[in-house]
Amino acid sequence: MGNKKKKSRIDEEHGLMQKIVALCKRRGFIFQSSEIYGGLKSAYDYGPLGVELKRNVMNEWWRSMVHEREDVVGLDASIMMSSEVWKASGHLSGFSDPLVDCKICKARFRADKAPKVEVGTEVTFRQQGKTVKQKAERDYVCPECGSPVLSEERAFNLMFKTSIGPVESDDSVVYLRPETAQAMFVNFLNVQQTYRLRLPFGIAQQGKSFRNEITVEHFIFRSCEFEQMEMEFFCEPDQGEKWLEYWKNERFNWYVELGCKKENLRARPHEPDELAHYAAGCYDIEYQYPWGWDELEGVANRTDYDLAKHQEASGKKLTYFDPLKTNPQTGKQGLHYLPYVIEPAAGATRSVLMFLLDAYDEEPPSESRKEGRVVLRLHPRLAPIKVAVLPLVKKDAGLTEKARQIVKQFWKNSINAFYDEKDAIGRRYARQDEAGTPFCLTVDGQTKEDDTVTIRYRDDMRQERIDVATAVQTVVDKIRE
Amino acid sequence: MGNKKKKSRIDEEHGLMQKIVALCKRRGFIFQSSEIYGGLKSAYDYGPLGVELKRNVMNEWWRSMVHEREDVVGLDASIMMSSEVWKASGHLSGFSDPLVDCKICKARFRADKAPKVEVGTEVTFRQQGKTVKQKAERDYVCPECGSPVLSEERAFNLMFKTSIGPVESDDSVVYLRPETAQAMFVNFLNVQQTYRLRLPFGIAQQGKSFRNEITVEHFIFRSCEFEQMEMEFFCEPDQGEKWLEYWKNERFNWYVELGCKKENLRARPHEPDELAHYAAGCYDIEYQYPWGWDELEGVANRTDYDLAKHQEASGKKLTYFDPLKTNPQTGKQGLHYLPYVIEPAAGATRSVLMFLLDAYDEEPPSESRKEGRVVLRLHPRLAPIKVAVLPLVKKDAGLTEKARQIVKQFWKNSINAFYDEKDAIGRRYARQDEAGTPFCLTVDGQTKEDDTVTIRYRDDMRQERIDVATAVQTVVDKIRE
Repeated sequence: MGNKKKKSRIDEEHGLMQKIVALCKRRGFIFQSSEIYGGLKSAYDYGPLGVELKRNVMNEWWRSMVHEREDVVGLDASIMMSSEVWKASGHLSGFSDPLVDCKICKARFRADKAPKVEVGTEVTFRQQGKTVKQKAERDYVCPECGSPVLSEERAFNLMFKTSIGPVESDDSVVYLRPETAQAMFVNFLNVQQTYRLRLPFGIAQQGKSFRNEITVEHFIFRSCEFEQMEMEFFCEPDQGEKWLEYWKNERFNWYVELGCKKENLRARPHEPDELAHYAAGCYDIEYQYPWGWDELEGVANRTDYDLAKHQEASGKKLTYFDPLKTNPQTGKQGLHYLPYVIEPAAGATRSVLMFLLDAYDEEPPSESRKEGRVVLRLHPRLAPIKVAVLPLVKKDAGLTEKARQIVKQFWKNSINAFYDEKDAIGRRYARQDEAGTPFCLTVDGQTKEDDTVTIRYRDDMRQERIDVATAVQTVVDKIRE
Repeated sequence: MGNKKKKSRIDEEHGLMQKIVALCKRRGFIFQSSEIYGGLKSAYDYGPLGVELKRNVMNEWWRSMVHEREDVVGLDASIMMSSEVWKASGHLSGFSDPLVDCKICKARFRADKAPKVEVGTEVTFRQQGKTVKQKAERDYVCPECGSPVLSEERAFNLMFKTSIGPVESDDSVVYLRPETAQAMFVNFLNVQQTYRLRLPFGIAQQGKSFRNEITVEHFIFRSCEFEQMEMEFFCEPDQGEKWLEYWKNERFNWYVELGCKKENLRARPHEPDELAHYAAGCYDIEYQYPWGWDELEGVANRTDYDLAKHQEASGKKLTYFDPLKTNPQTGKQGLHYLPYVIEPAAGATRSVLMFLLDAYDEEPPSESRKEGRVVLRLHPRLAPIKVAVLPLVKKDAGLTEKARQIVKQFWKNSINAFYDEKDAIGRRYARQDEAGTPFCLTVDGQTKEDDTVTIRYRDDMRQERIDVATAVQTVVDKIRE
């Protein structure tokens, strides 16, 4: 059954992704960066609705990971970090893709993403207008022209490099962080000591990271500039496995609680040969995207790898002191040791795409409705606009004024309410359905008489007449629940 | 009077800034970046309290500028933008500092920040262990060794440069944005059309910007990586002056409403010779920092300069169509024109420093209190922790459990409550005073009997016994008011 579902989604991959991209542009969720100049490859701008959706996703993460936990605190480190950090972490030497140049068409591409062939088979390609045949010496060919005439593979570092200060030199090189995690390791003791934290505890961070990806794909799924939500949870080494399970479950449930359909999610344990060299265990929380299961978040047991590397490279002791543990060598109370780290590392940018895909729905015309509709069934907490307040006609100043008063009541409750008086009421409902707005309140002549409005529910289009105070409370409760 | 006040603050500049830096480090507001590796010049990491303070400042701006206005929408554009953007905006050719090399000691420095001398006077400096005298040919000397033997001045561009894609070439160069504003100009029509906006309206954005500043100063005040809060308000050209006044007042009042002392703020109109070449008028909203009046925010009438430049460079029409206006040339209804732009451009990083400085207070010991205290009188909306819930003794499981229940009640109301059971109650109060927490609730034996707690108010240390429900409501009301 799962397979059948999967197949049907893959079949419509092209269609669904195209629809999402079109909706994003049409409704102002996401635009291409620098569009009037032909666009910058793989960079995107979030428009009025997109920025609210992204903020909501990230704020929900912060709420659940930092505010509503005793054992996790926040951090916001700079994007530029000392090169020493990346030397120690292994990113300077190891964080690279294998790049190859095609000697025929001069394309540069990633070897591991190129079309596969069997070594020794004869492949056909075009060179200077002629068809040429040649044996493939490797198990791939050029993705552009199909030729097997290729340069050596070279390691291409994915970090963006720039220079700080007035003089460009080796000392002035800095990199844009390719992940937020390292800042938690280098700040581990600062945070632990100023906040007097005891194991187990976590440090959480959100923010931009940058990777010079050669292959960018699937709209905002893989891009060079993206946003992460990472948490490093420090614990006693022998508790690592337990906490890995705990965080895998916590993070899986977070997506479900925010409305992601459970059947589109899975937590896949890494195979031993798939594990990063520093990891003692890892789950990928995967989503069934239109192109198949792919990563949404990784939850890994990074052991004490990172702290040990930074301790060695910096010469600064990064051990935790546990006054209650006994030192097995001396038999005395008090033990210094490096904790293990469990890391749930989520992509905020990817989550935005996932929530859009998962919420997208089309309803065909029905007996009661001549026209079909597109609706984003976003969780109310994620919806960019929580409630739209619509005066039935804009020429009646009494209605527009009343509607604006209601909007202000929502603002007082920190709820993002939207006033709209443009076009017929049906078109306004349709716009809000596409924006994912869970509630519409319509203000009409009767409102002036008895202070009631029509509340319309996005998901089933049900409408009821209730008084304004109840309407406000209904929305407030739904958002907070 | 203003002068007297200024003098007394300048006198204590060194002291107050040192105290703020020390408090930031001690309590986990702000650390130096990559500290264990000796630190990265001019980059800072926000610790558990700092990240909350910065988030609160930025969220308050977003609330007042975007959510609680009908006429402003949000945007979140990528940090990397096409080089074409910076060519058109003038940043590639004009955004630079004059740099000079000293031929004696090899220091590189900013000519406009170097020590002044009179041209033609004889200056003394040391060269290879000997004292040398020489006439100054310019009105400044080397800030390191005092020599007047200097290279030519060269323009040093402040933008950070990197390269995107697999091949480094002229085409692959991208810059980190030195301001967020240009994204609003290049996205002007996308946003206006998808959101069907009518003039006047604004587009607001928050986020990181980067400038390779040669002179960094005053802790986080001027750094290479910083956070901005900018809004571009598009209006009819002849309404520019009116809206400039409007926004200058709005922005000034925003700081006051969030607790900044009015006497430490001023809106200073730019002198004609101080105006940027594109601006028809500008105010600096300045704060009386310990080193004197200095910028917090600029509010400028940028005219149609930016839209005109991007229209010219991109070849894309960026005019707004007003269906109600009459075209003076044809006499027909409907007019295309470039709007004017009023820009309130605030520094989020600077605001954080300002709010810390403004809130910092020391109280000497008094008759009723043996020890003095340090207290951050932050506005409750800005305070990193809104309320601390403290069980009087941690060994009584009934108290700790009750305290944790109260914490959860706050979380339900989206209020960042903090549980603390470490140390004596007096030390816990002192920690919360330094963190700027406006309320502490203490849970003791009586709480178990009658469900009352002691609420302690940060500012006057007043304590009263109230029941838990009232305590929760008091805090909720105070935060929302």
